[in-house]
Amino acid sequence: MKALIPYKKKNAKSRLSPALSVREREHFVELMLRDVVGSLRGAGISDIDILTTPSNGVPNDLGANILFSEHDLNEAINQYLETISEPVLIIMADLPLVSPMHIKEITSIDKDLVIVPGKGGGTNVLFIRNPRKFYVSYYDSSFLSHCRIAKDMKQSTHIFDSFLLSTDIDEPHDLIEIMLHGHGLSKVYVDSKFGIEGNGKSRARLELLQ
Amino acid sequence: MKALIPYKKKNAKSRLSPALSVREREHFVELMLRDVVGSLRGAGISDIDILTTPSNGVPNDLGANILFSEHDLNEAINQYLETISEPVLIIMADLPLVSPMHIKEITSIDKDLVIVPGKGGGTNVLFIRNPRKFYVSYYDSSFLSHCRIAKDMKQSTHIFDSFLLSTDIDEPHDLIEIMLHGHGLSKVYVDSKFGIEGNGKSRARLELLQ
Repeated sequence: MKALIPYKKKNAKSRLSPALSVREREHFVELMLRDVVGSLRGAGISDIDILTTPSNGVPNDLGANILFSEHDLNEAINQYLETISEPVLIIMADLPLVSPMHIKEITSIDKDLVIVPGKGGGTNVLFIRNPRKFYVSYYDSSFLSHCRIAKDMKQSTHIFDSFLLSTDIDEPHDLIEIMLHGHGLSKVYVDSKFGIEGNGKSRARLELLQ
Repeated sequence: MKALIPYKKKNAKSRLSPALSVREREHFVELMLRDVVGSLRGAGISDIDILTTPSNGVPNDLGANILFSEHDLNEAINQYLETISEPVLIIMADLPLVSPMHIKEITSIDKDLVIVPGKGGGTNVLFIRNPRKFYVSYYDSSFLSHCRIAKDMKQSTHIFDSFLLSTDIDEPHDLIEIMLHGHGLSKVYVDSKFGIEGNGKSRARLELLQ
């Protein structure tokens, strides 16, 4: 089994700019990537591919394979799927709330495809047992697209219901979820920036992000 | 086992006003309440109490007990908890994505307390096995409050991770989740208002809500 993480660092997460500077965001996306990689490894997945572009500087201490592509996300992933013949978990790099338990649960579901929806019609994780019998279509309402593709390709499908995995970190208020439900490097970072002590003061700070 | 649903109809859900008029909102919250009651019944819970105020006109064909209180939400629920001695599931009326399976899963967890977090630190469902050994504290970061109270009261706790149950319907973009993941009366209503046919046109309409 393999995992694929699409990754973009350069000027990443511009919608977080009310809370974090470009430098901070670039640091933060790397921390989130490290947390995602850590959870994959914690679930026993060691064959990890990170898909990026040459300008995006993936740290070289992750023990992951770095795949460069200048294509658009869908084209790059679909080319990738054509080259492999084992199950693959595609997980976004901005899901620091993922735990090893999530990964274990998803990859043990006895279906051809597992779709983990994000808020607003997105797709946050895809587990594809038959990479030659599926293709991705991110952007727009990708959740609906992936359901439709699965049906067209006659792939049995499970929709995995997780608040923590639905929470991709895009906007300042998403940082609250890291403070409340997070772990790892991203939580240490967000706590250090915005503080939480579980008392009245922390509530005031939480409200700053809302 | 009992269920308690706090319910407010009058001028409910003002944050939905960009999408729905006050009359539409009052109709819609009743549909959501019906969907929640339907899912509780589907899970075999027939002893359902709806907590409301005299001005909020709960429909009388739900087969539920209607409890009136003029107290604030916390005070009303805490008075209620003092009167009962069996497990109780407190579920908000604005969770139309709840399914009977969710209810069955939550109520079969072998802990004193199950907390289902909502977005932004809220608490959307509480399953309380020992009502005399817990009290609620909604508003602010109620998720943190309930974790703290459980610890103080030495109640073993499980955090239930569900995207669908984290989605209380507060703002226009939440209606998208009903279109994508909903069922029942609230989905029929939202689909009829905002339309979804799984094609390009639907995407444009979805974007109107974002």
